[in-house]
Amino acid sequence: MSVRPVDASEVTEWAGEADVVVVGFGVAGACAAYEAATTGASVLILERAGGPGGASALSDGMIYLGGGTGTQAAAGVTDSPEAMRAFLLAACGPAPDESKIDLYVGRSVEHHDWLLARGVRFLGTVDPLSAGPSAARGEGLMFTGGENAWPFDELAAPAQRAHVTQGTRQGGAALMAALGAEAERAGAEPVYGVRAERLITEDGRVRGVLADRYGQRVAFRAAGGVVLASGGFVFNDEMLSSYAPAALRTRTRLGTEGDDGQGIRMAQAVGARVKRMDSLEWALPFNMARGNVSGILVNALGRRFVNEDTYMGRVGQAAMHEEAVHLIVDEARYDPAALGTPASAVAESADELGAELGLPAGSLTATLAYYNEHAAQGEDPLFRKRPRWLTPLTGPLAAFALGPRHFPHCVFTLGGLDTLPTGEVLDQDGDPVPGLYAAGRTTSGVAARGYCSGLSLGDGSLFGRLAGRRATGKG
Amino acid sequence: MSVRPVDASEVTEWAGEADVVVVGFGVAGACAAYEAATTGASVLILERAGGPGGASALSDGMIYLGGGTGTQAAAGVTDSPEAMRAFLLAACGPAPDESKIDLYVGRSVEHHDWLLARGVRFLGTVDPLSAGPSAARGEGLMFTGGENAWPFDELAAPAQRAHVTQGTRQGGAALMAALGAEAERAGAEPVYGVRAERLITEDGRVRGVLADRYGQRVAFRAAGGVVLASGGFVFNDEMLSSYAPAALRTRTRLGTEGDDGQGIRMAQAVGARVKRMDSLEWALPFNMARGNVSGILVNALGRRFVNEDTYMGRVGQAAMHEEAVHLIVDEARYDPAALGTPASAVAESADELGAELGLPAGSLTATLAYYNEHAAQGEDPLFRKRPRWLTPLTGPLAAFALGPRHFPHCVFTLGGLDTLPTGEVLDQDGDPVPGLYAAGRTTSGVAARGYCSGLSLGDGSLFGRLAGRRATGKG
Repeated sequence: MSVRPVDASEVTEWAGEADVVVVGFGVAGACAAYEAATTGASVLILERAGGPGGASALSDGMIYLGGGTGTQAAAGVTDSPEAMRAFLLAACGPAPDESKIDLYVGRSVEHHDWLLARGVRFLGTVDPLSAGPSAARGEGLMFTGGENAWPFDELAAPAQRAHVTQGTRQGGAALMAALGAEAERAGAEPVYGVRAERLITEDGRVRGVLADRYGQRVAFRAAGGVVLASGGFVFNDEMLSSYAPAALRTRTRLGTEGDDGQGIRMAQAVGARVKRMDSLEWALPFNMARGNVSGILVNALGRRFVNEDTYMGRVGQAAMHEEAVHLIVDEARYDPAALGTPASAVAESADELGAELGLPAGSLTATLAYYNEHAAQGEDPLFRKRPRWLTPLTGPLAAFALGPRHFPHCVFTLGGLDTLPTGEVLDQDGDPVPGLYAAGRTTSGVAARGYCSGLSLGDGSLFGRLAGRRATGKG
Repeated sequence: MSVRPVDASEVTEWAGEADVVVVGFGVAGACAAYEAATTGASVLILERAGGPGGASALSDGMIYLGGGTGTQAAAGVTDSPEAMRAFLLAACGPAPDESKIDLYVGRSVEHHDWLLARGVRFLGTVDPLSAGPSAARGEGLMFTGGENAWPFDELAAPAQRAHVTQGTRQGGAALMAALGAEAERAGAEPVYGVRAERLITEDGRVRGVLADRYGQRVAFRAAGGVVLASGGFVFNDEMLSSYAPAALRTRTRLGTEGDDGQGIRMAQAVGARVKRMDSLEWALPFNMARGNVSGILVNALGRRFVNEDTYMGRVGQAAMHEEAVHLIVDEARYDPAALGTPASAVAESADELGAELGLPAGSLTATLAYYNEHAAQGEDPLFRKRPRWLTPLTGPLAAFALGPRHFPHCVFTLGGLDTLPTGEVLDQDGDPVPGLYAAGRTTSGVAARGYCSGLSLGDGSLFGRLAGRRATGKG
């Protein structure tokens, strides 16, 4: 679909006009529209689906917030902006966007309260099992970035920060029901069934959006600014091939068909620059059954590559480039039901199992000998898995194939437009493109490289708010 | 430096005008200018330095050619287009640009002869040592991509394909002396001391280049087309940080100060799209003293990560993301002079050496036990180093620190503009930007991910020729 910009002089009829035109009605678009509308600006939201939600509504509704929110206090979780900042700088790197993290941390308590005022509900509890690597659904606050695993547990005091939106429906749906309604109550007007295709420009300024509605071209004029909040590009194979080819290895791509990169490309076509387009969120949810964490994950060389007890998103990013991933467990931990997939091999010895898996001769035996020797002392010199999960693996062994062809590796894109934290889209010179703003996964946000569940709803909502306000000229 | 395009109507005076304006007088620019000029077109070459050469002149002058060139025949090297194609598809991937590889292989013999006709001299010899991982300077034909190492030796019959330009000066300088003179003889006119900054556009078409000359803005009009051949972006820290941050870890960046990404950014500012911006050539030249190849390279975990006997560019790409790199040799191979750097540690045992290097407890001992056991059988189950270089490492051991802070890791960028093999620069829709062409390291070329020495002069020269011809409208 062409993204070549169109000059306003070529537009013969405007299907709509507003101070601010928001593209996409997910979390970032809803928050941008709400904030713009509350300043008194007129707001149109262009959404290709038939209602609000986007990928946000399909998510678990976790929002990464901290530094001492009311919900954290109610749950007895101790946190500070300093600990949150130190953790995010380490976990979102290498080379994260410090200005975005600073703003995100500094505004976190205020943003939490803003969400409550919008009708979003959190629960001031933590599951005692949340000390582990994952937690059951329905929980109030969770660890979702490896806060309590090596190396982060040594860098900052761990605190549960993922605030799970409560509701009778899935968290993300409840979140978007609340925020979508609020945006409309504030006066923003959604236009459904329109697919934004190109930007309309006038004298070097973005002045609107050309869209497709049931096969017809329709133009929407933005007197003040356009906010692109149309998601990432995990459903655009051509963009993945160019920017983040690893994602092509998995079929479990998270998002909606709207995550086709159109918003990013529309902006690039007017000279906007992109940032960290190779960054991917990549989760390997093998640890829902916690016993698995006491097994070891090995790659095609028969070697471990990560501390198995960390956040599944860190396990996934470590597994991203591995040709193969095998979970090795022993008889004590063998639970064929736990993964929803049968064992790929069982054997009496590591040599035999390694041969069955086609691993290099003797490598699994060497891996296990080294692991077991140290696990018996409660130590993991290579990756510092915590003692709780360290037990020598003995007796008959089983393997589960957890590579992306055999098991869901859940992926979406983290790279996107280079923006100021306040939403201005930057051009190749690093200057704002007049009239153009963006937020959410259309942009490169707080999670530059590493990820924590809840950061996309988190920066999408906060930076969406700022972008919406800025687009009115009153931010 | 701003790259915002300028409308031709804003230009009050043209400092020069030609059918084709070429930006950059390295190998791609010289070949583009030559071909354009031989069609009868007028050609200006804008070069920021005081003479031809660019990064090409600083190189060893190796050009990757094959499929049965005359030079290969003279040296008794057997090769075929099929073997060359199979090798490049594997070595330049994953997911290389097949259309570029097909054209590159299909034109290789013709391009070899074209270079000879331009006065470039090759030598029809191979060094007997070229069966090894590297070769001495002054050789005729070399392995430079791991053709004779695992896994490529199993995929295609290995052939030496890097043709080393001969001359009284360094190969690259000799190459550029020949090609620069030929371009001028053909009628192309170089303009030195001008730094291209922005593209000039007219009615959606590229019509020229705005440049800086001694602090003055000067405009050059291109009636037919502009060819960007201004190198990569290894000297632009901001671009590296956004697109290829690993490169910031080394100080040994190969190129000239002209490799500042300006050409790429100028094109992006008119909506051109880029491809594989995270790809890096990354060489770790530890194997010039061949004895080192019998040692092992281990990372911060004390584990091997590559077959030490492959091309130093593949060793480097494997080392790129390693926190640390140590070469471990035993007494028989201990030659403190070989690397030009003293040993970082010596010890009587692997345990002791590992402790001195700060490696995880027992990991180096485990690595060596596994390596030695199999090396004694002439086998390397993990990485298939060839038997010739496999010897158990025994007795007192020494380590050399080869991480990027201690040893030169030689890097340049491989990502760039997305072009057709014939040089048309593509926009976000995948359509050619009217009037804009590019070649060389301003583009993503034959080496999509993996690299072989000689591919940059190779695709820069061949695709430079095609781009120059295409820019005249006669290609």
